[in-house]
Order: sequence, then C-alpha cells, then structure tokens
Amino acid sequence: MLENDRTQAELAAAGAIQNRSGMDSEGWFEYLVRVYPHHTDYSGMVWHGTYLAWMEEARVESLRSLGIEYAEWVAQGLELPVVQLSLRYHRSVKMGQLVAIRTRMAASEGVRLLWDYEIRSPDTQELYVTAQVTLVGVDRDKGKIIRQLPPALKEALTRLSVKPST
Amino acid sequence: MLENDRTQAELAAAGAIQNRSGMDSEGWFEYLVRVYPHHTDYSGMVWHGTYLAWMEEARVESLRSLGIEYAEWVAQGLELPVVQLSLRYHRSVKMGQLVAIRTRMAASEGVRLLWDYEIRSPDTQELYVTAQVTLVGVDRDKGKIIRQLPPALKEALTRLSVKPST
Amino acid sequence: MLENDRTQAELAAAGAIQNRSGMDSEGWFEYLVRVYPHHTDYSGMVWHGTYLAWMEEARVESLRSLGIEYAEWVAQGLELPVVQLSLRYHRSVKMGQLVAIRTRMAASEGVRLLWDYEIRSPDTQELYVTAQVTLVGVDRDKGKIIRQLPPALKEALTRLSVKPST
Amino acid sequence: MLENDRTQAELAAAGAIQNRSGMDSEGWFEYLVRVYPHHTDYSGMVWHGTYLAWMEEARVESLRSLGIEYAEWVAQGLELPVVQLSLRYHRSVKMGQLVAIRTRMAASEGVRLLWDYEIRSPDTQELYVTAQVTLVGVDRDKGKIIRQLPPALKEALTRLSVKPST
Repeated sequence: MLENDRTQAELAAAGAIQNRSGMDSEGWFEYLVRVYPHHTDYSGMVWHGTYLAWMEEARVESLRSLGIEYAEWVAQGLELPVVQLSLRYHRSVKMGQLVAIRTRMAASEGVRLLWDYEIRSPDTQELYVTAQVTLVGVDRDKGKIIRQLPPALKEALTRLSVKPST
Repeated sequence: MLENDRTQAELAAAGAIQNRSGMDSEGWFEYLVRVYPHHTDYSGMVWHGTYLAWMEEARVESLRSLGIEYAEWVAQGLELPVVQLSLRYHRSVKMGQLVAIRTRMAASEGVRLLWDYEIRSPDTQELYVTAQVTLVGVDRDKGKIIRQLPPALKEALTRLSVKPST
Repeated sequence: MLENDRTQAELAAAGAIQNRSGMDSEGWFEYLVRVYPHHTDYSGMVWHGTYLAWMEEARVESLRSLGIEYAEWVAQGLELPVVQLSLRYHRSVKMGQLVAIRTRMAASEGVRLLWDYEIRSPDTQELYVTAQVTLVGVDRDKGKIIRQLPPALKEALTRLSVKPST
Repeated sequence: MLENDRTQAELAAAGAIQNRSGMDSEGWFEYLVRVYPHHTDYSGMVWHGTYLAWMEEARVESLRSLGIEYAEWVAQGLELPVVQLSLRYHRSVKMGQLVAIRTRMAASEGVRLLWDYEIRSPDTQELYVTAQVTLVGVDRDKGKIIRQLPPALKEALTRLSVKPST
C-alpha cells in the first residue's frame, strides 16, 4: 500500500502502473481485470456480455502501449467500430477472480483489423474464452469506411502484428 | 512495457500491480480508472450510471487492501448490499481521461457502513463527482440484516475509518 | 398473439404498444420492465446500478408521451444531463420479476428539473426503490447550462408537472 | 393512453402488453426495443455490446411466449449459459430508434440449442445485425452439462423450432 505522504510525483506514478500490461514472447498483449459484483449475473459467474467490455479495454490499452490514444483519434475524426465478433466460452469465471485478457493483432486487410483474444488465468494455465474481433476504419464526418488507414496508425499496427523475435 | 521473456513470477507481479491504489494522508483510498468507449454515452462523456460500477470497484479494492476479500465473504454467507446512494455530478468526464475514484469510510452505525466518495483528476485538482453510499450487512441464507458484523470485518473496518495520523 | 400471418400493419402496431405506459391519477407515469439475467448480480437480485438505466428509460418515455423526443432535442443541441441523484433501496428485486418504474416531475426551478421515482410491483403494493433525480438543460455546442428552457419543452413539462385533477 | 383514472385492472393490462411481441410467418419471434442514452457510446450509436443484452431479452421472452419462465427453471436448478456467439454488424443504430430483435431457434443438438438472430427496423426493411448464439443445458448444483433436456423444455423448444406452416 502507498504511503501517507504521497506527492504529485507519486500520484503520477500511480497513473503509470495503470499500464499493468505488456506483450509476451508470443506477441500477446496482456491486460488484467478483477471480477467485481457488477460483472456477474445471478449465476455468480461473469455475465457473457461483460467480456466484450474487457476486450475493448484490452484493445484500447494495446494501442496505447504503441502510442495510439484512441480517444484522440476519435477527436480527430477516425473511428474503429467493431464489424464482426465471435466468442467461445470454455469455462466460466467467478466473482473475485483475476483474469488476463490477452489480445494480439492477427492480420490487417486494408482498413479491416482482425484481433485474436484469449482470456486466461494470470498464470495462463486455464483457458476461459477465445474470441476474434474485426474492426474497420471509419471517417466520422462522412460516416463512411476510409480507403486507407492514416500512416501513423498503420505503422503502429505493423509493430503490433509482428511477433517479437526470440 | 514488459519484456518478451516473462516468467510466471513476473506474471504474478503483474497481478500485484492491479493494486494500483492506496490510502493518502487524509484517509482516502484511491483507485484509478481509464474511460473506455463502453463507459460513455452519445455525449462523448461518461454515462452517469457508470460511476456506480467504478465506486463498487473502489470499495471492493479498498476492502481488499485491508485483507477483506469480498467474494470470500459472500461465499461464506455475508453480503453488503447498497441501501442508500447519493451523487452530485460537478463536471463531466471525457473518453480517454484517467480519473481517481477516492473513497473513505465515513462512519459505521452498527451494521450500516457509510462511505464517502470523491471522483477527481489524478492530480486531485479537478472535482467531477461527490457521492455517499450506505451498505448494510445481510445474512445471505436468512435474507436478513445481521445483528452485528463479524469481528474480523469490524476490526478491518476500524482500520479503514481511522484517518492516518500525521 | 403469435399469429402466423402478421402484416406490416400489425408489426407497426407491435411498435405502438411499446408505449406500455401512462399517467395514473396521482400524476405518476408508469413504465414496466422485466428483470433479465443481465440486470442481476451474483445475489440473483437486480444489481443496484441497473435501476439508473430503468429510470432513464422511464424518463425518456414520460417525455415521449408528451411529444418530446429526447433524441431529437439532442440532435438539435439540447441535452438534459443528470446533475444530482439519490436512491433508497427498500427491498431487492429478483430475476424474472415484472416491476413498475413510476416517475413524476416534482418541480422545475429555472432550467433544473426535479423528478421523483418509485419502483413498485405492478399492483403498486410492494415498494422496492424510491429516488430523486435532478436534470439541467445544457447547450451542447457551448457546453454550458442554458438560461432558459426552449418554450416547447417548458410547455410540455408544465403538463407533466401538473397533477391531474380528480 | 394517459388516462387519469387507471384502475388496478388497467395496470394489470399494462403488464400484459409487455408481451409486445410474437412469431411471424417465417418463425421469427420479434421483440421491440427503443435505444436510450445508456445503450449508446461516444459515437451516438448503440455500443456493440448492448446487442447481447437485447438478444438475451428476446430469447427469454421467446421462451416465455411458450410458457417457459427462465427464472423458474433457474430456481429449479437448470441454467442455459451461452457457450458460443457470433455477430456481424451491418449498419449502426442511432439513439431514439426503435428496433426489432428477431430470434428463431435454428436447431437443437442434444442439449445444445442454436438460435439465429436478425436485428432490423420494425418494418424489417433495414438490417442492422445478424447473429448466432449457442446455449447449453447445465445442472446448477453439479456445475455440469446435463445429459438431456427436461421433457417439458424439450417439448416447448420443439414448438419453437418448427416453422409455422402456411
């Protein structure tokens, strides 16, 4: 736990550890979440729709780790809405558990971005959910799919989709 | 960002920084959240009900910092449902912002626990929301309010409500 | 119900009964909701934040019953964000139950609108939640509180706040 | 609508029209929803995860139309969790719109139930989302997949999966 005399610098540091995630040797970006009451349903397990929120959070954090602030891109007129989504629920997750949302850009086809997901226990031994999400670049003003991604985004995504060499 | 050769030990450590929060000199426990698309509504700001989820998360983490695992207490038959709630929305919070959910146990009257909340910018200079929540101890099997809190919980809460000395 | 040969006209009618609500002799506008799994938490009861979504729905429907389409007002630049909120949870509501969200404009002070809420069983005998919500008119472009409500809105709200005579 | 002297009987009737849905000539069960602020995100459109909640509501109502009260089956120990899910988002849906969630049991393979979904404008001319969901019967006490569905449920589902003859 933190100290009683936290300075501004320490508060900034607390913000930094928000990035409690990173990329592993197989190119998975990992984002940890804890299961709180509002994530569960009557079964005491995570409600099946909750995973979509976590997957969105992991995706945004994965982009942030590459210097892409999604909110800023939106402010500048680019959106990346979900156009396709599939999930397989292998095991249910209980209230109080800590789980790792693992994501990896699988491929990009023009302005379509395919992301793979695995939701696992933090030690990666238990597999709870596997999923795939497809995004597409949209011009907010025109309400239309863009022809090509902005170079800065393209370049960042290239870094994301390349598996780290061993 | 993390390394390519993360070991199990490092993954465990990643879990630890989940506790990216702590108590400051005025007794506020602080829990940082980032605003993702699913937290917002058509206005581009946080939807007013989202704060209740964050307040619940901060409360559960505040208890965890004292060794109280809420999910375990629930499994053993004790619940702490919200019986009263009030919020004042001072300023709206935008997508992409990082905000500090600050909570402090204000008082306990028998089995009723009163919690104060402040939602601020991480540097605490901007105030977004102030709130109060009252919980009550309930026996899950009987579906009734308990007469007194279990001693272990009472003791932990005492530590929470005492402002740190300076 | 369950006709095999529903025509477009019948589909339109199905849309009409969406307005499954109205004002009673004490001026309460009533909006019925069913509790589905996603509304509940681990307790099998409605999660305490779910009520805010239902209260918003009832408020929007109450305005619609007076000819005020909230989405259109937003498109034209007026928003009515929540600035204050208080709830008391008297009894919990279980999955599968049908509940009546009852709302009534209590007062308007300039551009501030105060709404009372009661959440009850459909026969009104059981009381689950009482609440109060304050909205304020905001100019979306300027991001500022407006000086006075547009006349059409004011006039509609007058009709809402007047208790029907007996 | 908006009678001043609604009686208890009328209130009960208001509850009845909650079942604002039915089966059309192609076997689609239809459930109408209105888009409220809490369904949207910063884009002013429905957040992509919101559809899962609506699909769950339509599924539960479809079962209810056949006399299957999901909450009662859960209370008796049977659950039907989602084990697989896929969605394609064709067009986005705006705040204020009324949309028809259309569902149809596609097949049942033992204790696995496959449901098709279409989300359309109420006149069925616009297609927003297509989806498929697979459920499986689970014994709540044992936490295991059941060997066969209870006869009453099986019988009801048979009625659901048979397309009405013309």
